[in-house]
Amino acid sequence: MTVQKDLNIVPFVSVDNMMKLVLSIGVEPFLRELADYIEEDFRRWELFDKTPRVASHSKEGVIELMPTSDGEVYGFKYVNGHPKNMREGLQTVTAFGVLSDVYTGYPVLLTEMTILTALRTAATSALAAKYLAPKGADCMAIIGNGAQSEFQALAFKALLGIRKVRLFDIDPTATQKCMTNLAGQDLDIVACKTAEDAVEGAQIVTTVTADKQYATILTDNMVGSGIHINAIGGDCPGKTELHKDILLRSDIFVEYPPQTRIEGEIQQLDPDHAVTELWQVINGDAAGRTGPSQTTLFDSVGFAIEDFSALRFVKDKLRGSRFYDRLDMLADPDEPRDLFGMLLRAEAALQD
Amino acid sequence: MTVQKDLNIVPFVSVDNMMKLVLSIGVEPFLRELADYIEEDFRRWELFDKTPRVASHSKEGVIELMPTSDGEVYGFKYVNGHPKNMREGLQTVTAFGVLSDVYTGYPVLLTEMTILTALRTAATSALAAKYLAPKGADCMAIIGNGAQSEFQALAFKALLGIRKVRLFDIDPTATQKCMTNLAGQDLDIVACKTAEDAVEGAQIVTTVTADKQYATILTDNMVGSGIHINAIGGDCPGKTELHKDILLRSDIFVEYPPQTRIEGEIQQLDPDHAVTELWQVINGDAAGRTGPSQTTLFDSVGFAIEDFSALRFVKDKLRGSRFYDRLDMLADPDEPRDLFGMLLRAEAALQD
Repeated sequence: MTVQKDLNIVPFVSVDNMMKLVLSIGVEPFLRELADYIEEDFRRWELFDKTPRVASHSKEGVIELMPTSDGEVYGFKYVNGHPKNMREGLQTVTAFGVLSDVYTGYPVLLTEMTILTALRTAATSALAAKYLAPKGADCMAIIGNGAQSEFQALAFKALLGIRKVRLFDIDPTATQKCMTNLAGQDLDIVACKTAEDAVEGAQIVTTVTADKQYATILTDNMVGSGIHINAIGGDCPGKTELHKDILLRSDIFVEYPPQTRIEGEIQQLDPDHAVTELWQVINGDAAGRTGPSQTTLFDSVGFAIEDFSALRFVKDKLRGSRFYDRLDMLADPDEPRDLFGMLLRAEAALQD
Repeated sequence: MTVQKDLNIVPFVSVDNMMKLVLSIGVEPFLRELADYIEEDFRRWELFDKTPRVASHSKEGVIELMPTSDGEVYGFKYVNGHPKNMREGLQTVTAFGVLSDVYTGYPVLLTEMTILTALRTAATSALAAKYLAPKGADCMAIIGNGAQSEFQALAFKALLGIRKVRLFDIDPTATQKCMTNLAGQDLDIVACKTAEDAVEGAQIVTTVTADKQYATILTDNMVGSGIHINAIGGDCPGKTELHKDILLRSDIFVEYPPQTRIEGEIQQLDPDHAVTELWQVINGDAAGRTGPSQTTLFDSVGFAIEDFSALRFVKDKLRGSRFYDRLDMLADPDEPRDLFGMLLRAEAALQD
């Protein structure tokens, strides 16, 4: 595509380039560095402009815009959630995102975010677990072996040193896919026949199923004390994964309470049930794990600031790299008021 | 850029291609056809999901997301407003937009919208005037001769048959730029030294200045009865162009009252001051102009549905054209749950 001058150009990271960028860094180092960016932004949480996502619901799914700003940089993510898509050979979730300069309002990055969201979700889970999981945890269960499962395993390996992963999915082909993909990643992987079996011996349990309705992936008797539960599959109204009794005896940590009370596991609880905000734990303002017998629960629904961190990270990583295209996306007439004149000059150029 | 399969591809209209598309159709036919799309969507106004824009304000300006949906198609526009940009050689307003399929949540169009917004604003103004301006109007005044002015003149020529245009701007170089750009467009153009002079003999007055503060571009004595005022410069809190007395004796028409009461000229009036919604006039549910002595005012701030119409129009016009690029924007693994496997296959391909 034609590029005239730099002002009109927005760097664009395609799916292909995102994969190349991730691979050039390495999946685990990427997850570790990305978690550092998320941690950094959680530390300055209060500085951010926080809006609940703007959702457009339909019978088939939802399309959401998730904006935020730290006062200097503005970012937003477009993301859809269509559980029925998988049956039609499409992604349940696709996403793209934009970063802009608050001072000029000009976009400075456009990027695919389907892959990037998978990475940031896993990085956020592992970051939370750094503060909440029992010390020395080396075994995790992953219940739900869909698109997010491999990223979870590698993030927990990279950030917490997890060595053993116990997999379960109601669909054995999903478990098989996850095992195949993780072969050669230096993990000890066990395919389990039931969720009960999967949680056996695991200090960390990630639930990441795609169920749309109130489901009970984990019942109270399955969860021993001292466990850290990383619940990321419940992420919209009517979609939960844990039995209420587990919530009642866990210490619950969330991203942004106004959003989590609507979308997370805690939609099952009273609206004033005590929860702790993860950023306060990271900041040192609130306690995370206080002892070995405490059951901790990270009720994660995904928040705009995590996407912001991911966009910021990608933008920094692009510097000096070749993993982007230059999109002629912003009209930039020589004289700002002369938009129509730009059109006239384009016409003259076509006639030459 | 590499493209593998069609599912991952989003057509992208660059600034360059938008200009070529507009020029291939012709500016006036483009404005006429675009106005038809807007009119069609105003007729089915009640069907749309209407959210006030989601704004992120800063000291220097604002960044907004404007989403809407008709239940089958979802669209949103990203737009910034930074009045100080012009002094730095940047556009005050830049924009891009996305159209998506509600059924799958997949984006189906990404396009520049700086030029497109200029066109849709002018088309909306002229569409409103079709219902509100005095019969046989052939002369309009344009006060404020910035980036929007030429588009206004051509939209009113194309839709209402305006032949005479009287220009005024506090900056004579802006007026000169507008005159130069409109030369050869078969319009009788007069540069005026004052706003009073400009409105002389005009049946339609467009105010489209860039003033940020409460301004009085038109005072009560300047506006004779029977005039149609098209006020488009007042479009955010604290930014108005008309003296309150003009509002008090005009019949006021607006796009979406909850938004206009905050951003439009009517922010000067009581929150329950009677206004008529333009879609009801177009639909035949409310009266537009009722006689030759009525003063009508279209207090326009721009609404998401107009952008939706513009996106829909561009998408239809792209069919069979070459005025777009194919962006590899959506991750599309062969098996929807196998996002990580796609990454592994990309790695294998790189090593080949």
